[in-house]
Amino acid sequence: MARQRIPVIGVMGGAQVDHKVEEQAFALGAAIAEQGWILLNGGRDSGVMRASAQGAKSRNGLTIAILPGKSPNDANPFIDIAIATGMADARNLINVLSSDVVVACRGASGTLCEIALALKNRRPLILLDPLDPQAILPYGAAGQIYITKTVDECMATLHLLLPAQPAKD
Amino acid sequence: MARQRIPVIGVMGGAQVDHKVEEQAFALGAAIAEQGWILLNGGRDSGVMRASAQGAKSRNGLTIAILPGKSPNDANPFIDIAIATGMADARNLINVLSSDVVVACRGASGTLCEIALALKNRRPLILLDPLDPQAILPYGAAGQIYITKTVDECMATLHLLLPAQPAKD
Amino acid sequence: MARQRIPVIGVMGGAQVDHKVEEQAFALGAAIAEQGWILLNGGRDSGVMRASAQGAKSRNGLTIAILPGKSPNDANPFIDIAIATGMADARNLINVLSSDVVVACRGASGTLCEIALALKNRRPLILLDPLDPQAILPYGAAGQIYITKTVDECMATLHLLLPAQPAKD
Amino acid sequence: MARQRIPVIGVMGGAQVDHKVEEQAFALGAAIAEQGWILLNGGRDSGVMRASAQGAKSRNGLTIAILPGKSPNDANPFIDIAIATGMADARNLINVLSSDVVVACRGASGTLCEIALALKNRRPLILLDPLDPQAILPYGAAGQIYITKTVDECMATLHLLLPAQPAKD
Repeated sequence: MARQRIPVIGVMGGAQVDHKVEEQAFALGAAIAEQGWILLNGGRDSGVMRASAQGAKSRNGLTIAILPGKSPNDANPFIDIAIATGMADARNLINVLSSDVVVACRGASGTLCEIALALKNRRPLILLDPLDPQAILPYGAAGQIYITKTVDECMATLHLLLPAQPAKD
Repeated sequence: MARQRIPVIGVMGGAQVDHKVEEQAFALGAAIAEQGWILLNGGRDSGVMRASAQGAKSRNGLTIAILPGKSPNDANPFIDIAIATGMADARNLINVLSSDVVVACRGASGTLCEIALALKNRRPLILLDPLDPQAILPYGAAGQIYITKTVDECMATLHLLLPAQPAKD
Repeated sequence: MARQRIPVIGVMGGAQVDHKVEEQAFALGAAIAEQGWILLNGGRDSGVMRASAQGAKSRNGLTIAILPGKSPNDANPFIDIAIATGMADARNLINVLSSDVVVACRGASGTLCEIALALKNRRPLILLDPLDPQAILPYGAAGQIYITKTVDECMATLHLLLPAQPAKD
Repeated sequence: MARQRIPVIGVMGGAQVDHKVEEQAFALGAAIAEQGWILLNGGRDSGVMRASAQGAKSRNGLTIAILPGKSPNDANPFIDIAIATGMADARNLINVLSSDVVVACRGASGTLCEIALALKNRRPLILLDPLDPQAILPYGAAGQIYITKTVDECMATLHLLLPAQPAKD
């Protein structure tokens, strides 16, 4: 009998973002951890990557980084498991493929790349408080993109997309 | 004394596009070959990948494919050199890094991914007849994105960006 | 103050191996988990990948798979965290770079590839009960390769290489 | 009617090798070019990568580099087409998958990795003047590995493996 894998939520977003976006990422990471879900991100020590992992650890969640460089020691201090790829931006594909759902916070071209890869690889994609969602919608399949304004809306969408989980031990 | 590398023009675009976009891609490939430049694309046997390579070969140009799969034999018949990566969409990074200039024709999420990677990795990016260029502009650095309407405009921009080449032998 | 990362032990080895090699891999996985260390392997549902993960889960350890394919669901049922790369054998580099120490059980060309990448990237490498260690030694730097006959010897070597850890909670 | 792709010969080997090995690599590159075949290697500016490309260019052959870094400008000056991967040693997989036949000159762990990947991916593999071929043979399938002592023997084996080509224009 196969054990059920714990859902992995990929949280993408910019390395250089407004303080408000970092606060959202922190709150999102915390909310993901409270559900017993695993947080996965790009693992660097800035912006959404740092803030979302810090949020998850504030609730004792499990955090995974998919790093562009060759050393696990490049991960920010809120990462439990650092996957070092040595493959630069090619690691963006791994971020997406390893996530049951991809959440995109605000970001720059790296985040746009991960959005595109989620759409290409048919992963459910939630945009959190996007600046210009109309620019993204034409690239997705019907029903693939969910637009949310707040962390609460984002979490409600995650609950719709993911099977109910037993309470975290 | 170092020889000068021949410029490589990366032509990106959808696998499923309108006939008009394929005609543009064919004309672009032909014009690139006429300059003695090398055409690089994703190599599959459809859409912009096939049409641009066919155009280049119609002028006896050199064509390179960066393939997502494991076999060079997956390339379309207008490819001279088939690079098989076995790395799925991670190969999009190679398309961009190996190109002196990236030209994006109309396409879907795969093309959006390559646009994002060009912006992230500071490669000059020319959009050819884009549907919604305003959606892309905020992701690029100042002066990094060139918007063109026609193949002639695109070629004029390529000439601005690339050093003059000696005539093709 | 940076938290200390929990050591990650990469266990490599063949997908098709003798029953004795699978028993070793199971025992090694169990011993790694008993130390509170994390087990990382290639995640497929056969041979050393399955047996070492099963051993680690028999002691309630944490297990990570770096998969060649596009779906986390390809992992064997003893994997907690499935990293889907979509990059075929290129994922072997990730196996090695993400491991604090690489242990190579007996295997075939895939394992040989991981041995070579560990040597190239200066990760400490322990060979467990190798058929022909003399074939590998010339490719490593001085002091980089440890040859062990039994799981007990392998674990003793891991303890030499890794800092002492607090008891697992 | 599909055009026939020109065969691509992947020449692998160490970045730091004896002068004799460099001479072999130069002669091999020259002989490959004389057949009208394409030379593919790892593209860096040292050892077998530089020497084999220099040999091929001495006979006006076409040379391709699959580079570990992000810039085509990292290629040695005897490379015509520089594919920049940004993927470090993961690019070794591309070297192998893109070659119709892989020739391994003497080298270190990087070359061993490419040998292993050729065996794993069922590419024909020719060892040229290997130090210890017995160490490699157990990892290959029956008939997959050809052991040669000289460039002439290596070229004779390539002719057995590849279909006859029309004379180069």
